[in-house]
Amino acid sequence: MHTPLTIAGFQELIRRRYYATDSARGTPGTFMWLIEEVGELATALQDNAPGKSPTHEQRANLSEEFADVLAWLMTLANINGVDMEKALAKYTDEERVKGVKS
Amino acid sequence: MHTPLTIAGFQELIRRRYYATDSARGTPGTFMWLIEEVGELATALQDNAPGKSPTHEQRANLSEEFADVLAWLMTLANINGVDMEKALAKYTDEERVKGVKS
Repeated sequence: MHTPLTIAGFQELIRRRYYATDSARGTPGTFMWLIEEVGELATALQDNAPGKSPTHEQRANLSEEFADVLAWLMTLANINGVDMEKALAKYTDEERVKGVKS
Repeated sequence: MHTPLTIAGFQELIRRRYYATDSARGTPGTFMWLIEEVGELATALQDNAPGKSPTHEQRANLSEEFADVLAWLMTLANINGVDMEKALAKYTDEERVKGVKS
């Protein structure tokens, strides 16, 4: 049976698996890993741009790069004590939505 | 009553609110917005670094910058046809976890 993945559940999964290593490395080094993945995402977006004919592998890679960026963002949140579900209240709380995302 | 926010639910919320605008702008311009928020996240991480004495506002801003990065990542996924919950299977599917996040 499929259980929808929650923001908090994914953050916790990343915490269990990577917190010790990433906490020991610290924020600056972990931020560099995030940026490396953001760079790989840029490459994958170019490979899949309109007018290109991406291979199945390039298309699959695009999804993986999005996932990797989110994983590094979550681990960076973990080692900085940020609860992503609470942070997202600025988007999910209807009374607060005006003017966000800019 | 509190309903846990799902990855798919948040992606859909961002789609409803921003898809038309961000799709019209296209991937390169939307990617630049993502990077702008990544830069603001870097600033907020520095403001909240060990040894600093962040104000309550700086601490709150850190959470907001994490949320903004995730929102722009989601909208970029939307306009590129990427389902984030499916993409995250590389982390959530136990048989696939070896060697990921690097």
